[in-house]
Amino acid sequence: MDTHLPRIFEAINARYENHIRRIQRLIRQPSVSPLNIGVRDCAELVKDMFLEIGCSEAKLVETSGNPVVFAKYNANAEKTILIYMMYDTMPADEEGWLAPPFEGRVINMPPFGDTLVARGATNTKGPLAAFLNVVETIKDVAGELPVNLIFVAEGEEELGSRHLPEFLEKYQNELKKADLLYFPTAAENRKGKPIIHLGVKGIVYFELELSGEKWGKGPTKFGIHGSNKAWVDSPVWRFIHALSSMTSEDGNKVLIDGFYDKVAVPNEEDEYLLKELEKTFDEEAIKEQLKIKEFIEGKHGIEALKLYLFSPTLNIDGIWGGYIQEGTKTLLPHKITAKMDVRLVPNMQAKDVLPMIRRHLDKAGFKEVEIRMLEVGYNPARMSYKDKYVQALLKSIEQLGKKPEIWPTLAGSAPFSMFHDPPLNLPFIVGGLGHGGLAHSPNEYLVIGEDGPTGGLRSMEKSFALILYNIAEA
Amino acid sequence: MDTHLPRIFEAINARYENHIRRIQRLIRQPSVSPLNIGVRDCAELVKDMFLEIGCSEAKLVETSGNPVVFAKYNANAEKTILIYMMYDTMPADEEGWLAPPFEGRVINMPPFGDTLVARGATNTKGPLAAFLNVVETIKDVAGELPVNLIFVAEGEEELGSRHLPEFLEKYQNELKKADLLYFPTAAENRKGKPIIHLGVKGIVYFELELSGEKWGKGPTKFGIHGSNKAWVDSPVWRFIHALSSMTSEDGNKVLIDGFYDKVAVPNEEDEYLLKELEKTFDEEAIKEQLKIKEFIEGKHGIEALKLYLFSPTLNIDGIWGGYIQEGTKTLLPHKITAKMDVRLVPNMQAKDVLPMIRRHLDKAGFKEVEIRMLEVGYNPARMSYKDKYVQALLKSIEQLGKKPEIWPTLAGSAPFSMFHDPPLNLPFIVGGLGHGGLAHSPNEYLVIGEDGPTGGLRSMEKSFALILYNIAEA
Repeated sequence: MDTHLPRIFEAINARYENHIRRIQRLIRQPSVSPLNIGVRDCAELVKDMFLEIGCSEAKLVETSGNPVVFAKYNANAEKTILIYMMYDTMPADEEGWLAPPFEGRVINMPPFGDTLVARGATNTKGPLAAFLNVVETIKDVAGELPVNLIFVAEGEEELGSRHLPEFLEKYQNELKKADLLYFPTAAENRKGKPIIHLGVKGIVYFELELSGEKWGKGPTKFGIHGSNKAWVDSPVWRFIHALSSMTSEDGNKVLIDGFYDKVAVPNEEDEYLLKELEKTFDEEAIKEQLKIKEFIEGKHGIEALKLYLFSPTLNIDGIWGGYIQEGTKTLLPHKITAKMDVRLVPNMQAKDVLPMIRRHLDKAGFKEVEIRMLEVGYNPARMSYKDKYVQALLKSIEQLGKKPEIWPTLAGSAPFSMFHDPPLNLPFIVGGLGHGGLAHSPNEYLVIGEDGPTGGLRSMEKSFALILYNIAEA
Repeated sequence: MDTHLPRIFEAINARYENHIRRIQRLIRQPSVSPLNIGVRDCAELVKDMFLEIGCSEAKLVETSGNPVVFAKYNANAEKTILIYMMYDTMPADEEGWLAPPFEGRVINMPPFGDTLVARGATNTKGPLAAFLNVVETIKDVAGELPVNLIFVAEGEEELGSRHLPEFLEKYQNELKKADLLYFPTAAENRKGKPIIHLGVKGIVYFELELSGEKWGKGPTKFGIHGSNKAWVDSPVWRFIHALSSMTSEDGNKVLIDGFYDKVAVPNEEDEYLLKELEKTFDEEAIKEQLKIKEFIEGKHGIEALKLYLFSPTLNIDGIWGGYIQEGTKTLLPHKITAKMDVRLVPNMQAKDVLPMIRRHLDKAGFKEVEIRMLEVGYNPARMSYKDKYVQALLKSIEQLGKKPEIWPTLAGSAPFSMFHDPPLNLPFIVGGLGHGGLAHSPNEYLVIGEDGPTGGLRSMEKSFALILYNIAEA
């Protein structure tokens, strides 16, 4: 460990109250991107915070959507880390908050001890502000950072990072200077075990719709009296058949030509990681948490994990059409819509997905079904656990006395491929100590104290500092 | 024509203002059965009105739902008519009313002239009160009615007549005394042509649902993060396949075993009526009204009418599951539901429908799909145009100078089979002069004046009076 670190850790302990206040300052500026509340004001605040901690440059970069806050910290170091962050949050208008969601109140929440309960506490204003605390503290104590930093804080993560590609193209030359991407997060689970994901799936999110207007059959403008079904075509029935052509009867095998063509099978390293993971994989706890009775085909252990982590999916997130209130109105609906997503695993390409679905629908005779892209979509991204930066991350966690659980990938999605794919080709790592939960739900929290089963704010900040030093030496 | 009729017609003309007031009195007592507003108070008012016009008995008969108002008028005549009516209405909380919907304001509405604009104006408080006006007027002018009357005014027509069978069973012996059922309505179309339907389709309305809870697969309690599709079954996909097993790919042929087994083909009389009907059937006007570009398979004329009137249907009225708001939430839903109805033609039986669907789902391997009956359902009902009471109805219209357009049946449904099937076996007729429109919509209206293309209140009342006399002589 670097000789500065003991004093940095001491300073992190000493500055605890002040560091909480920076998080609260960020929490108190709402930035709810789905409802467009406070987003630009928050971008300005984040920019100011970058300047406060000593960035030489910080600015709002406009996109067709919310601005990206871009900043640079030059330490004249050998390595440059691109710090990926988001400053937007989900809404907080649900019932059941223990404190106003934009106040940032510290609440004792058993078994975790002191937690900060707020929208954005863990996802991800808490870790963002904590990382700024760390940068400031290292500079004050050690005189300089061990690495240069490029900050990219986007304001549309909760909208699917839809305009991030615009920024990435415009700033390609700046971003190319980075050696890797690091996304600082609180990665411990409820029991205090750090969970490290080496990758993410890609995603394409879209709607399918069949309207009588487009079809030229059925009601075209509005739903009509249900008795007309006798002599008028039903867009709903037709759509049901279009959907059913896309999967096997159990809904688990996708029947779209080419869907599985590029899918990589788990390699030797994956098999090793899966075996390791199986040792601590708590199947029953996950079933209880998800309220499911079994995995697909009753699979267990590694077989279940393989499905989860290595298979692509075609999911129906929602479907609606016609009369969906109480009671018994008879209606021949004119339109039906489904929200759907495809999750991509290596080596699938996001750009292939919608053309593949279009071809399938056309070939199966459903030319009248429209595809509406809702998010630009992105590829999966994976790192090897042998990568030196991954090793630096794992080493940091171990040096702080914790044993990480390594997952080959997250089954969920994040836009890391936008940085990991050409032209940037950046390695990436995600994580840190600390624990938070209930993202997207009431009482989102970040553990602040150190008295529970998980690390708190100080653990998180120490891990961020150590990770920077270990990356510098990697 | 009976010798009393000229003086009865004169009295109807003279009492015009008073007769409007009785309709308004009934309109002003809301009786919105879907929202349970004012229903019982309206039942009491209708009972009082029956007593006012000289019924010897009038009472509220309780059911598990809203009461039926039952009344008897004894004229010591040979024939007894069961007058079927409803005193409930749909809600009136839509935008766009030209007058408060429970005020009963008379408004000039081109091209119809004076109309009464109110919820229930045509469906069916207007015709109900008008019929009471007629009974009172005949009695005053002729001394006695030519027929005995049994009134059955139900309060759940807009809820699918769900508890009417309870009443019918309890009052079977009383109702058996009737020779026929008559449902007095304003049956002229917008151009003033009386449209006489000789029957109605039956209907069964139900929901199909697939939940992970019931299935034992998929999420059981709530929707979970969409990435879990990779290792958890999807009730939505499974349901799509269950539905798609029920029809041909175009949604028009029902693939449920036995669905078409009892369906009667159009008989000689039907073919004759269809040929007559085709002469005046305005195909383009109907397409324009429904905003459709073509009928199923591009059919025209008699072929289209045959589909409409003589084919049973399996319709999806609505379907919903999962995330159906704006944006892109990924979700693996735990439940999906469809509202569906089957329309029955002779000689199908409502009681066969749900068992048939259950058998189909079980046989196709979808035991996990639940069927939830929403309405008790009822059979179709048909009369021959040669029936003496149908002839009395048609003759009445012609005697008043109009030429009726005869439809073998309505493609919609009404619970006439409850009276027409055993044990009551009552012939039934529906209709009268006059015109109303926009039932279930803002500005529901009944034409009151006689200056437009259609008959108004006085024409309607005269037709009701004449129909009673012609039935007496049938």
